[in-house]
Amino acid sequence: MAILVMKFGGTSVADLACIRNAAEKVKREVDAGWQVAVVVSAMSGETNRLVGLVRDVSKLYDAREYDAVVASGEQVTSGLMALTLQEMGVPARSWQGWQIPLKTDSSHGAARIEDIDTTAMLAKFDEGLHAVCAGFQGVSADNRIATLGRGGSDTSAVALAAALKAERCDIYTDVDGVYTTDPRVEPDARKIERIAFEEMLELASQGAKVLQTRSVELAMRYKVPLQVRSSFSDAPGTIVCDEEEIVESKVVTGVASSREEAKITLQDVSDRPGVAAAIFGPLAKAGVNVDMIVQNISDHGRTDMTFTVTLDDFDRAVATIETAKADIGFEGLVADRDVAKVSVVGIGMRSHTGVAQRMFAALAEEGVNIQVITTSEIKVSVLVQRRYMELAVRALHSAFELDSA
Amino acid sequence: MAILVMKFGGTSVADLACIRNAAEKVKREVDAGWQVAVVVSAMSGETNRLVGLVRDVSKLYDAREYDAVVASGEQVTSGLMALTLQEMGVPARSWQGWQIPLKTDSSHGAARIEDIDTTAMLAKFDEGLHAVCAGFQGVSADNRIATLGRGGSDTSAVALAAALKAERCDIYTDVDGVYTTDPRVEPDARKIERIAFEEMLELASQGAKVLQTRSVELAMRYKVPLQVRSSFSDAPGTIVCDEEEIVESKVVTGVASSREEAKITLQDVSDRPGVAAAIFGPLAKAGVNVDMIVQNISDHGRTDMTFTVTLDDFDRAVATIETAKADIGFEGLVADRDVAKVSVVGIGMRSHTGVAQRMFAALAEEGVNIQVITTSEIKVSVLVQRRYMELAVRALHSAFELDSA
Repeated sequence: MAILVMKFGGTSVADLACIRNAAEKVKREVDAGWQVAVVVSAMSGETNRLVGLVRDVSKLYDAREYDAVVASGEQVTSGLMALTLQEMGVPARSWQGWQIPLKTDSSHGAARIEDIDTTAMLAKFDEGLHAVCAGFQGVSADNRIATLGRGGSDTSAVALAAALKAERCDIYTDVDGVYTTDPRVEPDARKIERIAFEEMLELASQGAKVLQTRSVELAMRYKVPLQVRSSFSDAPGTIVCDEEEIVESKVVTGVASSREEAKITLQDVSDRPGVAAAIFGPLAKAGVNVDMIVQNISDHGRTDMTFTVTLDDFDRAVATIETAKADIGFEGLVADRDVAKVSVVGIGMRSHTGVAQRMFAALAEEGVNIQVITTSEIKVSVLVQRRYMELAVRALHSAFELDSA
Repeated sequence: MAILVMKFGGTSVADLACIRNAAEKVKREVDAGWQVAVVVSAMSGETNRLVGLVRDVSKLYDAREYDAVVASGEQVTSGLMALTLQEMGVPARSWQGWQIPLKTDSSHGAARIEDIDTTAMLAKFDEGLHAVCAGFQGVSADNRIATLGRGGSDTSAVALAAALKAERCDIYTDVDGVYTTDPRVEPDARKIERIAFEEMLELASQGAKVLQTRSVELAMRYKVPLQVRSSFSDAPGTIVCDEEEIVESKVVTGVASSREEAKITLQDVSDRPGVAAAIFGPLAKAGVNVDMIVQNISDHGRTDMTFTVTLDDFDRAVATIETAKADIGFEGLVADRDVAKVSVVGIGMRSHTGVAQRMFAALAEEGVNIQVITTSEIKVSVLVQRRYMELAVRALHSAFELDSA
């Protein structure tokens, strides 16, 4: 029997009425002949409540105990969902991470999945039982509960779909698909019918919040088609799939934006071999994710070095640089938290030139100054003053004709 | 190193402040040189919340899913307690039932402990780690979470103490020990310093709520000394131990009372061999616990049969009897929910005669009519009209001089 994985996020299982609504969607797929494995998040608000308890006890908490506490949220939902399905006449049982088992490494709080043994679940499928899996959690080699980090239920669902060789993994959420850009910024944003894994990956990592980056990576690696769709409507969602399965694609598929950025400039850095390593080595060691990097043209052996980090990492980045000041050798540090990143993404860029130029022209026309630029094969990102972010998004959405079907 | 098991009930871990208070008691024992295994209940109110969710989903719920949902309460407390201990410098880790593993049968919702494998925990003791175990839960042979039934954390604690060959099991609760009777009924009730397992068992099963009957049975079988003491004071509690360890004991140790009783009388029953089986067989099959039984003197081959059940079982008992009416053969059924049971308990009764007589005289003096009497080797119970319960308790407490040390 063909296997379908259906994942419901926190807002889709927020209370018993939502769980019932989600269960009805499951029942419909079961009635249509699918063997279903449901993956559930904690009821919305529950993870925050549990994390709050842990933080109130301990600032530098033991991540293994954090995991034991926080994973209980998904445990509750999995049991309630299994019961709801049973009430509807759908034979189902809950599976905790350790029961599957979904084996992880021991990076508690942000564990990586190492292996999913599907033997027991497949045996229960043969007995006619559908599965309801607690998302976000697994079990480490030393038999402790390990969570996959915030939003990890998407990753659970995709990994499970890969392990079960599922036909598709449907991610039910509170939006009805992936949009050409954030509809709150650009009301003319359209739902994308099909998008390639690579594009989705770039959009997710450039600020589109609809899917976890990790889950898209995993789906791409194991070629698990995803569908992003709404828990609260029956409209078809967005299919995320291999690019070969997309008949026609535009040059640009979507515009992403992120206000969670900060820019740091080191002034008057000695322009010598090894200076970049002196800056970015300590940052990497401190776990700071550096995104964009620009180095000015050198002037008499001195240069300026500018880079961006997420707002979350900002304090740590500045502290790290100050500590390494003697090793690096620079005169001043200028920090700017008043920035935002806007990106255009599309696999069409591989075969079409001029995307960057068209982007810069559209921004210039609106008087938006570009501070930093980075590009990849299928993406161009620019850093702008934060107040211009929405304007830039709208300008680019229109310049690349994303508002017309 | 000598092992001490410390169990904290729901009110003792009601919030983070209570958990901290409990953790301080643990730290004190650790500092005194004990190797400690803590057993925790869910934060008070949490189990009811979770049970409510399950009941709202399903009336005839799958007990395995009920267990998955409800056991999460203890999971949260175990992690928070471990973190709190770590914050105080006490090396500790949490253990879920399946991690220990505490193996149960598959009577989900009211499972019995079959085996506790202490190998892993003892190995962690050797590494200097104290244990914080989620009470109330274990794992069944098919790898599902199984709970031990309400109040099961006491049972978890005693069973763990037996398996670990602990010196003692301290049950921390919201009262500071076992009293000669309920102090809300008799202000002169005194805390008992030492009480024998058998006495505690009788008191618990006759209505004293301080300890679960099952946990006392278990403690008696494995000779695990218990101490019942308060989470909210430092006063020594009550030691429950082997009777040989009690130097001097009174004839009567305590007076218990229970208003959760109901009396059923079948009138004009044919007094023939097998009639008792015809009545009590169906009741047993329906899971009704019959407590006291009296049969009147037969008159021309007809008799009356009176028995008591708990209020919880009352409706089921009446329905069962009505269904079996033809088989039993009786004229009328008289139900009386306006009754209470009062018991005096003491191992001294074994060697002292006249306890029952002294009891009846004390009740007669107060004008309390006795409806039914049962006795065991160390207990005499009487059924009285409910309105006389408190009066009876006070009369007996004074008649057996329990108010004087």
